[in-house]
Amino acid sequence: MSIVTIERKVLEKNDAVAAENRARFAARRLFVVNIVSSPGAGKTSLLERTLETLKGRLRVAVIEGDVQTDLDAQRVARYGVPVVQIVTNGACHLEARLVQDALDRIDLDDLDVLVIENVGNLVCPANYDLGEAMKIVVLSTTEGDDKPLKYPAMFRNASVLVINKMDLVPYVPCDIAAIRRHALQINPNLIIFETSCTTLAGIRSWCDWLSSQAAHVHA
Amino acid sequence: MSIVTIERKVLEKNDAVAAENRARFAARRLFVVNIVSSPGAGKTSLLERTLETLKGRLRVAVIEGDVQTDLDAQRVARYGVPVVQIVTNGACHLEARLVQDALDRIDLDDLDVLVIENVGNLVCPANYDLGEAMKIVVLSTTEGDDKPLKYPAMFRNASVLVINKMDLVPYVPCDIAAIRRHALQINPNLIIFETSCTTLAGIRSWCDWLSSQAAHVHA
Repeated sequence: MSIVTIERKVLEKNDAVAAENRARFAARRLFVVNIVSSPGAGKTSLLERTLETLKGRLRVAVIEGDVQTDLDAQRVARYGVPVVQIVTNGACHLEARLVQDALDRIDLDDLDVLVIENVGNLVCPANYDLGEAMKIVVLSTTEGDDKPLKYPAMFRNASVLVINKMDLVPYVPCDIAAIRRHALQINPNLIIFETSCTTLAGIRSWCDWLSSQAAHVHA
Repeated sequence: MSIVTIERKVLEKNDAVAAENRARFAARRLFVVNIVSSPGAGKTSLLERTLETLKGRLRVAVIEGDVQTDLDAQRVARYGVPVVQIVTNGACHLEARLVQDALDRIDLDDLDVLVIENVGNLVCPANYDLGEAMKIVVLSTTEGDDKPLKYPAMFRNASVLVINKMDLVPYVPCDIAAIRRHALQINPNLIIFETSCTTLAGIRSWCDWLSSQAAHVHA
């Protein structure tokens, strides 16, 4: 049995579990997003600003995926939301089964939005469906404007691109128009936000959109 | 046959080819480094500044690994050095066999240093030996000081840590002392450089070290 066959089998099995997760979310009209990015692009910071902004407006729970440590879960727990940490112990992405196990530790009936923060990796998580409604890819301005071309699968499979760390634009050689052009070249349907977790620029617009999506699923 | 068994077999096969590469490098007293980092940490920029600085001092060739595009090879080729692009077509890391194939396109007898720039990924390339003398991990100050703890395998398997984008320290919530402390906690033997490819701070020190290593292998 070739390695490629094994990989396809792994993905097929993952997709089957993801479909179970998706059915469970649909039955509860729960809006679920899978946030992906390189390490350090600002997934957790974006989540912190989002939880602050949406406090009292939406009931949110979080699943944190990390190779090691529960540092991110500790950060998120400060905002008083339910959070479950998945430590992958070296694995480079979350799989649907890990999320399924984590779901047993969250009261899904009492939620509007479930945020899954994936392992920091712009390659591997692109291929693993977790049952989410959509993938949100976060790209920081410090990473350079060529990244959508160099890591196309993630931008192809995401529905939303958040360009984060906009406050650093004056200090880095990054052309925001080029990011947008390259990302839309890979995926013309991408919805794009520009945010800064330091100045809070763009955070309200992103949160309003997230709320409207959750309301749409709930309706 | 379990997936874990397959993965071990893949790694064992890779290690065998890496050993062949290593023997080939040793026979030519060629110093070979494998540069790894998250996407956008500045591997290619560091390489560009290094090629500029070492021009006329050392004979360098480059193997560029990317998921897609030959953008990095185009950047490096401007410095007049031999460069071979490996496009992994979606794969998240370089493997020894891909490097072995690329070696056929480089005149190894006419070189002091071979630089292999890996795919931007702080997880998967940690486990794949390419036959290099050492892994150099580049971490940018914008990624945050918790990364050595969150992605320990890469810092454990590297011999050198280059903390890049030092020019951005005034604008980001990053504690350099904490990066050093966390990295040395994972790997007490790490040699650490602090660089900026914009201001050129630390570049000479890094290049001097690289030259001395190459001379050592050559001696």
